[in-house]
Amino acid sequence: MRVLITAGGTTEKIDEVRGITNHSTGKLGCEIAHGFLQGNCFIDYVTTPQAVLPKAQPEIEFHFIQETIELSDKLTELLTANSYDAVIHSMAVSDFTPTEIFDQEAFITAVNQLLPHYDNRVSPEFFNELSPFKQTGKKKISSNTDTLFLVLKKNPKVIQLIKQLQPETILVGFKLLVDVSSEELLTVAQNSLSASKSDYILANDLTSISDSRHCGYLLDKKGVVGVGKSKKEIAKLIVQTILANYQQGGQL
Amino acid sequence: MRVLITAGGTTEKIDEVRGITNHSTGKLGCEIAHGFLQGNCFIDYVTTPQAVLPKAQPEIEFHFIQETIELSDKLTELLTANSYDAVIHSMAVSDFTPTEIFDQEAFITAVNQLLPHYDNRVSPEFFNELSPFKQTGKKKISSNTDTLFLVLKKNPKVIQLIKQLQPETILVGFKLLVDVSSEELLTVAQNSLSASKSDYILANDLTSISDSRHCGYLLDKKGVVGVGKSKKEIAKLIVQTILANYQQGGQL
Repeated sequence: MRVLITAGGTTEKIDEVRGITNHSTGKLGCEIAHGFLQGNCFIDYVTTPQAVLPKAQPEIEFHFIQETIELSDKLTELLTANSYDAVIHSMAVSDFTPTEIFDQEAFITAVNQLLPHYDNRVSPEFFNELSPFKQTGKKKISSNTDTLFLVLKKNPKVIQLIKQLQPETILVGFKLLVDVSSEELLTVAQNSLSASKSDYILANDLTSISDSRHCGYLLDKKGVVGVGKSKKEIAKLIVQTILANYQQGGQL
Repeated sequence: MRVLITAGGTTEKIDEVRGITNHSTGKLGCEIAHGFLQGNCFIDYVTTPQAVLPKAQPEIEFHFIQETIELSDKLTELLTANSYDAVIHSMAVSDFTPTEIFDQEAFITAVNQLLPHYDNRVSPEFFNELSPFKQTGKKKISSNTDTLFLVLKKNPKVIQLIKQLQPETILVGFKLLVDVSSEELLTVAQNSLSASKSDYILANDLTSISDSRHCGYLLDKKGVVGVGKSKKEIAKLIVQTILANYQQGGQL
């Protein structure tokens, strides 16, 4: 059995020394990897340099990425080259990437030069015209300004790639919300399941995560499959569910 | 001898799951700590949860922070409570903190509502008026928008606190630039030395830093004191310079 796991959190570059990071220690991904290794699986493990890693051994190959675009490229490469029985996509992926940065003076100049051409009203098109005014050629943004304006554009959803490239794989997606009711969490996760064409979603809430505990619900399209109260329990729930599926010939 | 070391890189919260991170592994800070521990010093070590740590031992006390404001508070607390013979401020500190975030619709609405009151011209004051329109109450920014506008304000320079609170301590600051000539690096570092009232600055360029090498110049107001070609060499240079100073009664 061959499994692809993503874990950790991406970082999108602002400049050479700063980035926007999605916080994730990678510890849950580690526990999931350990579970599959006990089940005699081979694992491709896609993660970031900052994440906690499972112990190196012949049955696990590590692939390191930083930005969302590198994650897309790496997943495309792996999903094209290999056939996976399951994909566990636990990485926290940046929804947005910084595309333009302005110091206060550059932003004010840009807006004031453009306004007369747009009847003194701004619009999405207006903000698309700002690009030529951005700070360029700066490898490290100077701190010689009181205010910075950062424009971020939405990234394509990386999870969509997975079923596009391997419709037959068993896909486990993750949904993290912050301080919502369990009803809302489960509803959002159920929507995410159909949008991402996942077979399962692990739904969790940041307020139920600490070093010592981690509450997560595993869902499929019919509802809650199981609940884990720690990273170990969640990992066990995911691994056992996948292995049971696999032994039944991959039929969900 | 008692020494205060800061190491690693701060992270400024955007929301509960995302932050702006200044990349720094903390490895150089570790080497500096190891050097001082061999010299029988007691160390207060201020760092971040993501950083590499020196080995725990009775002569080192760890203090963890994430954001720049927490760093200021922690340094104020330590510099008020204890007297340090030297402070080595190697932490990469965020120059800017996100203060407001807007999705595309909110930003456009805000600007268009304000423009008529400002003669259809924007200014620093104009952007100070945007605040009531920002996304609030969001613990995790929704990805349901194509564009985000992030406003960042400059942080006070934390290094300024150090000599304000302990004028007699020996202060080593750090200056990191990216892909500049060594002349420019040394000029900027010399300016930074006087601005921050540091006794020494370790000047380095990101393009001369990798896992295996790290080139750095140690400067005082008279010029280059020494050059290190690896983290170990830089750490040795800093530690020996400080210890020599201390043995001469702290007179520079």
